Amino acid sequence: MEYAIGVDIGGTKVQFAAVDPEGRMINRHLVPTEAHLGPQQLMEKVIAGIERIASDLQPDEGIAGIGIGSAGQIDFRTGKVAFAGDTLPGWTGVPIKRYVEERFRKPVYVDNDVNVIAVAEKVYGAGRDYASFVCLALGTGVGGAIVESGQLVRGAFGGAGELGHVSVDFNGPRCGCGNYGCIELYASGTGIARLGKEALEESGESADWQANSREIIQAWLQGNPLAVQVMDRVIRALGSAIAGFIHTFNPEAVIIGGGVSETGSVFFESLDEAVQARTSDAMRQACRILPAYVGADAGVIGAAAQVWYYGNNK
Amino acid sequence: MEYAIGVDIGGTKVQFAAVDPEGRMINRHLVPTEAHLGPQQLMEKVIAGIERIASDLQPDEGIAGIGIGSAGQIDFRTGKVAFAGDTLPGWTGVPIKRYVEERFRKPVYVDNDVNVIAVAEKVYGAGRDYASFVCLALGTGVGGAIVESGQLVRGAFGGAGELGHVSVDFNGPRCGCGNYGCIELYASGTGIARLGKEALEESGESADWQANSREIIQAWLQGNPLAVQVMDRVIRALGSAIAGFIHTFNPEAVIIGGGVSETGSVFFESLDEAVQARTSDAMRQACRILPAYVGADAGVIGAAAQVWYYGNNK
Repeated sequence: MEYAIGVDIGGTKVQFAAVDPEGRMINRHLVPTEAHLGPQQLMEKVIAGIERIASDLQPDEGIAGIGIGSAGQIDFRTGKVAFAGDTLPGWTGVPIKRYVEERFRKPVYVDNDVNVIAVAEKVYGAGRDYASFVCLALGTGVGGAIVESGQLVRGAFGGAGELGHVSVDFNGPRCGCGNYGCIELYASGTGIARLGKEALEESGESADWQANSREIIQAWLQGNPLAVQVMDRVIRALGSAIAGFIHTFNPEAVIIGGGVSETGSVFFESLDEAVQARTSDAMRQACRILPAYVGADAGVIGAAAQVWYYGNNK
Repeated sequence: MEYAIGVDIGGTKVQFAAVDPEGRMINRHLVPTEAHLGPQQLMEKVIAGIERIASDLQPDEGIAGIGIGSAGQIDFRTGKVAFAGDTLPGWTGVPIKRYVEERFRKPVYVDNDVNVIAVAEKVYGAGRDYASFVCLALGTGVGGAIVESGQLVRGAFGGAGELGHVSVDFNGPRCGCGNYGCIELYASGTGIARLGKEALEESGESADWQANSREIIQAWLQGNPLAVQVMDRVIRALGSAIAGFIHTFNPEAVIIGGGVSETGSVFFESLDEAVQARTSDAMRQACRILPAYVGADAGVIGAAAQVWYYGNNK
């Protein structure tokens, strides 16, 4: 049996796993990123983690290739970091692919963390039956990836799919990217917490929930009026953004994952209703809103899935 | 010499021309659409117009193929109208490609009116040097087209690129498409006129300009305070939308045409400034904002250009 080794490099942890062609993980482990120690130690950590996974394989088991997903903007063709912000200081410019290829002499694929989630959905998950779909990851921030005719849309240098930085209110608050009223300011964990804090302050009420997204969503599900008001705004903003993505891409599916979406069916039902109301008939009928299938391990599974996906499409 | 015959089917007129491989037109003519007379008469008009162009060619001149651009949503693969609204009543479902192929026995390509403008820009115009770019047509409405890796992005049934129906204000006025605060409500001729009318009514002032986009833009260029206020809102809304498109597609260029944009360099300078301020560094540096090159005849030239574009890419 051959395995693909997957590596998921995030701001707080680096995950490793051997993944079989069906998407099943064996031998997984994770280490803290310790990004503040700089790019050199991080690269060494990545190499050491892959070595450990490789050495845990049985003598009759081989490595088909190594797939890496990393936070930041990645140039897929060169496997170099095009841009990484404060999450991974000094990571910009690191030639990940070259380092890993030189060490292991296997096919290596490197892409950003949301693109590899889209690959996981395409190979194993909710995107399996679709040639064109949009992925949204509603986590601390909002990430995106776009698949058109079975291929990831990459743009000039691989930066395409930053769907969190699409404005839904040009009069809204300024975002770190420069734009105003980006959807990330409403539909991410951070955004929901911000709206919750604002609503609490404006109301002057004390609430039995804190202004963090998890508690706000719980209070919403229990019918707390202030939380209902906050989440109504979140759903309307996200519904407008998704309607815009549907008009832009005419996709067969919009696949939504990340912590904010993993709060049960009420979130998807409310969102579906908001999107339905905002989308033109023909496009709406051609498109389904689906929860991400692969779940919490989508990053490391998707990183590995690149080996099967690109390996079979050569 | 061989020519491509181009046909541009719009809501008020149908244009015909023979176009050479360099994009030069000969033998052009146009007829009124008279859409209210129904799809049958329109199809006959299209056939008759092509016959007239063909019969005007010299005996030693041939027809390489026929390219058609039409208002509405077109399924490029089948050359059928997927959806046409009130602009062309009854046009939905008409198999344009089949009718024209049966009559003329030549290669026939049919696409929507903004996709063929993108083809014109790709083959002859501002998009010639770019593999990935976004086209915006700011006319009565706002149309869009997306080119990625040299190919038009089409989506599930060819409806992709409806960029006019991306929201820039989820609390904004409702649009005919169902969404709220679509960019078409701000940056089209109709949208500018609406904002001008609102501004005049709110101010209670009388102005020496009427609430139509041409006069508002003229008054803006002359420094009229109320027109400045209106156009400031238009530019901010459009700047936010374009920043969103840049974050979405990481394009090498955004190419802007249509009546609203054909008002001189001040429009582009103001827009460029608004986009610059709203776009993250790496993506902004990789992207240029350019005026459409092909101009008022882009529809009929682009329709014909499909023959050279797809004919050479087979």
